[in-house]
Amino acid sequence: MSSSDDTALREQGTEFMPKFDSNGLLTAVAVDHASGALLMLAHVNREALDKTMETGFAHFYSRSRKALWMKGESSGHVLRVIEMRVDCDQDALELRVEAAGPACHTMATSCFYRRVVSDGTLERIVD
Amino acid sequence: MSSSDDTALREQGTEFMPKFDSNGLLTAVAVDHASGALLMLAHVNREALDKTMETGFAHFYSRSRKALWMKGESSGHVLRVIEMRVDCDQDALELRVEAAGPACHTMATSCFYRRVVSDGTLERIVD
Repeated sequence: MSSSDDTALREQGTEFMPKFDSNGLLTAVAVDHASGALLMLAHVNREALDKTMETGFAHFYSRSRKALWMKGESSGHVLRVIEMRVDCDQDALELRVEAAGPACHTMATSCFYRRVVSDGTLERIVD
Repeated sequence: MSSSDDTALREQGTEFMPKFDSNGLLTAVAVDHASGALLMLAHVNREALDKTMETGFAHFYSRSRKALWMKGESSGHVLRVIEMRVDCDQDALELRVEAAGPACHTMATSCFYRRVVSDGTLERIVD
């Protein structure tokens, strides 16, 4: 199969063909299903993807700890996956979730709790 | 400065200290500022970040072409950045944008135009 055939299948087809990178990872973005708010960004390997699909709860692969983890396994702040979307070239996932608590380990609702101000400083915007 | 001081500064501080990975990249997620919809996911290097902040239009770094590009430079479908947010550990950005056209090169509004159905097939959900 040529590279262009492969691209067309990935972009237009109805087959889920996740394109893991050279480290075996996809990028996964968790979004609050009800509000649409961006909650967090992490990575999944094949195992984390399978566990997420099997259990309905978001599992990720920690690049620093080199280990599979279930989001909320210690805090209880799990992310129940309502819907999973994939992007055009199938190297990124959108997990549309219902969060059992703050998505961020800092206890913020979202990891994206600061905006960059024009002078290069950060301003807190989300509780 | 110890690693834990560095982490505390990155997570709680008001200084923008982007943490580029070993390839010199941050992950950037573009979100429609008005609707909150997730539009696309890409990467920025230092130069793309600087260009984005200087011009107010999203610039990315293409890992496949190994080149800086302005989103919409050929299609005209630029992304005007209304607000830029950073995540807890400062290795990911949320670009809240106003899109001049479809965000996806396939002409879909969002790159995340298909959902994964339980049987492992994909279903188109976004025009």
